[in-house]
This record gives sequence, structure tokens and C-alpha cells, in this order.
Amino acid sequence: MPELTLQQRVEDHYKRYAETLCDLQIEQWPSYFTDDCLYRLVPRTNHDRGLRIGPMFAESKGALTDRVVAIRETLVYSARSVTHLVSGVRVVDGEGEGVQCRSMIVVYQTLIDGITQLQLVGRSFDVVDASGPELRFRERLVVFDTELLSGALVYPV
Amino acid sequence: MPELTLQQRVEDHYKRYAETLCDLQIEQWPSYFTDDCLYRLVPRTNHDRGLRIGPMFAESKGALTDRVVAIRETLVYSARSVTHLVSGVRVVDGEGEGVQCRSMIVVYQTLIDGITQLQLVGRSFDVVDASGPELRFRERLVVFDTELLSGALVYPV
Amino acid sequence: MPELTLQQRVEDHYKRYAETLCDLQIEQWPSYFTDDCLYRLVPRTNHDRGLRIGPMFAESKGALTDRVVAIRETLVYSARSVTHLVSGVRVVDGEGEGVQCRSMIVVYQTLIDGITQLQLVGRSFDVVDASGPELRFRERLVVFDTELLSGALVYPV
Repeated sequence: MPELTLQQRVEDHYKRYAETLCDLQIEQWPSYFTDDCLYRLVPRTNHDRGLRIGPMFAESKGALTDRVVAIRETLVYSARSVTHLVSGVRVVDGEGEGVQCRSMIVVYQTLIDGITQLQLVGRSFDVVDASGPELRFRERLVVFDTELLSGALVYPV
Repeated sequence: MPELTLQQRVEDHYKRYAETLCDLQIEQWPSYFTDDCLYRLVPRTNHDRGLRIGPMFAESKGALTDRVVAIRETLVYSARSVTHLVSGVRVVDGEGEGVQCRSMIVVYQTLIDGITQLQLVGRSFDVVDASGPELRFRERLVVFDTELLSGALVYPV
Repeated sequence: MPELTLQQRVEDHYKRYAETLCDLQIEQWPSYFTDDCLYRLVPRTNHDRGLRIGPMFAESKGALTDRVVAIRETLVYSARSVTHLVSGVRVVDGEGEGVQCRSMIVVYQTLIDGITQLQLVGRSFDVVDASGPELRFRERLVVFDTELLSGALVYPV
């Protein structure tokens, strides 16, 4: 078995992350992040102006876990399934604890009526810790184009 | 030339499969399966309840060939083109004759009016026989989210 | 670091190309092509009849640069962002200066109203020059299914 390149390890990380979201196993979602992670979801118009304001912001894995609890126990929303596609995963620079990566994302949601709608498209700009056997996001910045979302964005991206 | 990993061979298999569908070369479609293959297309709500009922079921390569004949000679449908995107192809476990794989799928159809519509999104959970030089699906289970399809699902997924 | 396969180098080329379009860095777009490149954008119905007529045709890198100037200085269009997804990138045959490749493409556009629309889906059939350290498209043929585009096709594909 040839040794995996960093690019291959990173692609595997993104695939598992997308699977977890598609399978609605969001309890597992925080496990893809480091303890001191930074997660941001920012519309493109804000990002292009250097603003970091967006519908979701978390400064630790604990905050992501809180989000999961909110989704499971507090939020009121109709049942839906998610297809999260990731494409173009690429290691841009770095190694070890600070691997800069990026990707393109398309998320589809299907409500109880069985109609699938495009939820959002965007790019992610991330920093991955590849120093251990399991990769983790240290930073994840999702910049989404779709400012008028069709339906609430319940699940993480 | 470095030896390909199993992951790379599997990705190549899925890419060729998607190309065959996009190119509307469905006569070639059964050649991606073993003789005793199992093919199932199941809506997510059934799959999540442990039900296997869905719009397409085939227990052999011969049954897939029958399906091709039906599409070419029996079914009445308007002309359409298909874009079949596969993403997140990953070897989950296994080797040799029983490689468990999964992927995300998005299918677009374009009718004669030239408008492209999302046909379905979903995931596939497959078993690939990688013991020979050419990979083959032993099992292919497509679990689709989109229960209210926009137009008939003529071609396989 | 294991040496990259041709397939891996080609995938990296397509990813960077897609990033450049998503980032709206279209001034960089011609740099992905050789000086004597051939670029064609052809609807599927024409392509299937052996016709090469389509909304965009360029016979050199200079013509692509002219196109960029037109977009930046001449064309009148509303602001938009683009998500360009490429999938199924595969080396079909060849090596050195003439590597035949293909891919599937989905392009989304988001106008100022914040609604994301599917712009087009299609396939590309390309020839890549992989003889130097940086890969370049010698030929790029985009065959798109979506003949009735939702909004003008401003940016290249």
C-alpha cells in the first residue's frame, strides 16, 4: 500500500465530513474539529468587504456541540434530509498543524414534500491540523453565495 | 508510474460509470456490474425504515440488460440528456471481491425545451469486486432524497 | 513525498481552474491555456450532430484575453457570483503535450437578489499539455446540456 499524500488524506477528511452531514449524524459533526477551532459561515458580500458577520460563528468545539444540542432539542423545524456535496478539495499550502485547504460546496435540502431544493452554494477556506493520525479542522470558513436561502439553514455546512 | 491505490481504482470506476450515463451509452451500463449483481434504487424514507421498496430493483446483470432494452425499445418518453455527477467516492472497508464504497450523486435532466432540472440527489452504498483488472459493482444501492421527481426517471442512476 | 501521477496533476489543474472562476479572477483565466489554444463552448444538440457552432469560440490565448477585456470593460451585466463545480476529472489517454481529459461541470450563478440559479450543466472534452511543470489546456471543448440559460452567460466556463 503506497503511503497517502497529504492531499489524499485531506480529501478523505472532507469526504467523511460530507458523509456525516448527509447521514444526518450531526452528533459526530464536532469530532471533525480541534478543541480550539474557529467556525464561521459568512455570506460572500460580507466576506468580499472584509466583514466576518454571518449566520453562524463558533470559537470552540464546545460551541459546536452546543449547536448540535440546539438542533436536536431546542430548534423547531420541519424534517428534512440533506445532500452535501464537496468538490475541488485542494491543499493550498502548509503542513503539520496548519494545512491550508479549500473546497467548493453545494447543499441540497429535501423537505417532507419530497421536493429537493438547492440550499446554498459556496466555497470553504479552511485550516486543517494534519499532525495526528486523524485530521481535524482548526478553522473552517464557509463563504456562501446564496444569500436568499430557500428555507431555514438548520444543519451545519 | 506509481501503483494505483484501491481508492484511486474505485474513483476511476465511478467516473467511467458516470461518463457512460452522461454520454447516454446505456448499452454499456450493465458492463459495470457482475453477473450476479444486485441493483436497488430506494427512496430515503423507505431506506431509513429498513424497507427496500423502490422504483427499480434488479437481481442480475441480465435484468439490467432487460432494462436497457426496455428503455431503447419499449418505453415512451421525450428525448432528454443527463448529467450525472458523482462526488465523495470513498472506500469504506474491505478488499478483493467485496470492497464497500459509497458516494454522493446529483442527476440533472434536460428536456427538449433546453431547461435543465435537478432530477434527484442521493447517496450510493455499493460493493465493488476489485479482484480482477476491471472493477465491477456486485451491489449498488442508490438511496435518493428526492421523492417528488421532476419528470420520469428514464435512465439508470 | 511520492511523485504525483498524471491523473493527480490533471485533477489539480482542473481544481485551480475552477477556483479561478469561482473567485472571479478572470484576468488569470487565459493563463490556464497554451498560446495556440482552441476554446469552444457548444450546445449538446449541435455537438451530437457534429456541429461546432456555439456561443463562444477562441483560437488563441490572445482571443481569451480579449474576452476578459470585453467582460471587464465592454459588457454590461448585473453583478453576479459564480460557483463552478468540476467533477469526474479523468485522464482518458495520451501523455506529454497531448493528454486527453474529460470532466463534468455544473455552474451556478447568484445575482444581486441573492438567489442562486443553476446556470448550466455539461461535460468538457479537453487536451492538456503536461510536458512542462505547469499544465495548460491546449484544447477545451465544453458541451453544455442547458440550452435555455437562466440569465446571460457572462463568465467563461
